[in-house]
Amino acid sequence: MKVNFAHTTQIRVRYGETDQMGYCYYGNYAQYFEVGRVEALRSIGMSYKDMEKSGIMLPVSEFYVKYCKPALYDDHLNIKTVITELKGARLFFDYEITNESNEVISTAQTILVFVSKENMKPVLPPNSFVQLIEKYDVSI
Amino acid sequence: MKVNFAHTTQIRVRYGETDQMGYCYYGNYAQYFEVGRVEALRSIGMSYKDMEKSGIMLPVSEFYVKYCKPALYDDHLNIKTVITELKGARLFFDYEITNESNEVISTAQTILVFVSKENMKPVLPPNSFVQLIEKYDVSI
Amino acid sequence: MKVNFAHTTQIRVRYGETDQMGYCYYGNYAQYFEVGRVEALRSIGMSYKDMEKSGIMLPVSEFYVKYCKPALYDDHLNIKTVITELKGARLFFDYEITNESNEVISTAQTILVFVSKENMKPVLPPNSFVQLIEKYDVSI
Amino acid sequence: MKVNFAHTTQIRVRYGETDQMGYCYYGNYAQYFEVGRVEALRSIGMSYKDMEKSGIMLPVSEFYVKYCKPALYDDHLNIKTVITELKGARLFFDYEITNESNEVISTAQTILVFVSKENMKPVLPPNSFVQLIEKYDVSI
Repeated sequence: MKVNFAHTTQIRVRYGETDQMGYCYYGNYAQYFEVGRVEALRSIGMSYKDMEKSGIMLPVSEFYVKYCKPALYDDHLNIKTVITELKGARLFFDYEITNESNEVISTAQTILVFVSKENMKPVLPPNSFVQLIEKYDVSI
Repeated sequence: MKVNFAHTTQIRVRYGETDQMGYCYYGNYAQYFEVGRVEALRSIGMSYKDMEKSGIMLPVSEFYVKYCKPALYDDHLNIKTVITELKGARLFFDYEITNESNEVISTAQTILVFVSKENMKPVLPPNSFVQLIEKYDVSI
Repeated sequence: MKVNFAHTTQIRVRYGETDQMGYCYYGNYAQYFEVGRVEALRSIGMSYKDMEKSGIMLPVSEFYVKYCKPALYDDHLNIKTVITELKGARLFFDYEITNESNEVISTAQTILVFVSKENMKPVLPPNSFVQLIEKYDVSI
Repeated sequence: MKVNFAHTTQIRVRYGETDQMGYCYYGNYAQYFEVGRVEALRSIGMSYKDMEKSGIMLPVSEFYVKYCKPALYDDHLNIKTVITELKGARLFFDYEITNESNEVISTAQTILVFVSKENMKPVLPPNSFVQLIEKYDVSI
């Protein structure tokens, strides 16, 4: 099912996230995308925390990121997160980070997989989630 | 029981651990002390990983650190870890980090507490651990 | 000069900040206190970023933290930061982290030192900062 | 210039690098690949630290990673780093992480760009580096 749900959240670059280049370290973006993801899910009515408590986890299986311009200390970034597809056990996200001058800092994609906490095997997403995401179905 | 067991391990400062000051970020030392601790325990014959699997965890309850000189990118640091005391459920550690020029970078102390994984309540340390640490008893 | 300026800021515990104990990792609190500090300074009118650009940095020289209760994934924490004293080149902060149930998660203290970017030697704080902080002088 | 230089380095998963899933957090792999990269460069005779001091930096411009199996706390991982191509200002790396049971944990690719520290513009790599890497030329 192709979907199209976009949500934007803000993050401020912490001092400890910079490196001696004076940039936000490339490895810290993964946390920013995770925050974008969790807030996008929260905004459609899904608590990632509660889903994990119910026995289903959503680890990342693939991650691609392009660094366009550096993010700097104290920059107030916009993280636009788009849920683009649900395909079996897999959930697809696109991201775009922009700074206060509206410059594109980074674009990224991730694939996440619903897995059972018990045996770490892929499972279909919970019905409650499917119902929430179906509202944004653009498959037609 | 006052004990005295010292162990030294090495760590190289990673790029992602520096900040824009060009120093190793002050928050990253906690990981260094954790590595020192785990390797000190391993060297007396205790696997922290196995203890956790057996249902006992060892979270940090207090942490004090003094930053004397900056640690820099790619510095090859010595982390000297000393187990100093076991008092009920509490285990005390001292640390000293030095660089390749033998300058003291940092000194620190931590208090850790043995807790049950089930209810997160303090518990006495496993007998197997007590037997290992008793060899370094200096209580007189 | 004894001062008393308190400011509270919020932080949500990120997934990547938890550890396999299911707690926020003890080493990640240093970033939270840094955020509390920077926002406290911003709220009295001082931009840490600008001060660093002007050639003065403020590294941490001592850090003490007590972990009272675990912070958990997705917890929305209050970080209360109190600037307590300015003594020569040294600036003192107290912190208290509470969760949504108003339980105390952690208390901490840090000492920071104004240093020149050029030679990393302690320097007196910029006049502009002294003027801002003097408003909260409780030395009498 | 297509090259083929492979180097393997070891890393142990730290406690603070795990998350509440009990896995090494997906965002921490970026640091592992960085360590793999720096040690691969060191092993052909190039110090990244010294290059940066000479005014040339090497930020990451693209990063793709596939997570095959979880890395767990205390796992002793092998990071195989392969330098595969130098093309203008861009340097290409492939990575494979395996655990002690020789299972593939992750594969990844990165593109890095030589840039001048002064103006952050792409520059040709230093001659000293080209001479070191030419030994592994497989372009023919």
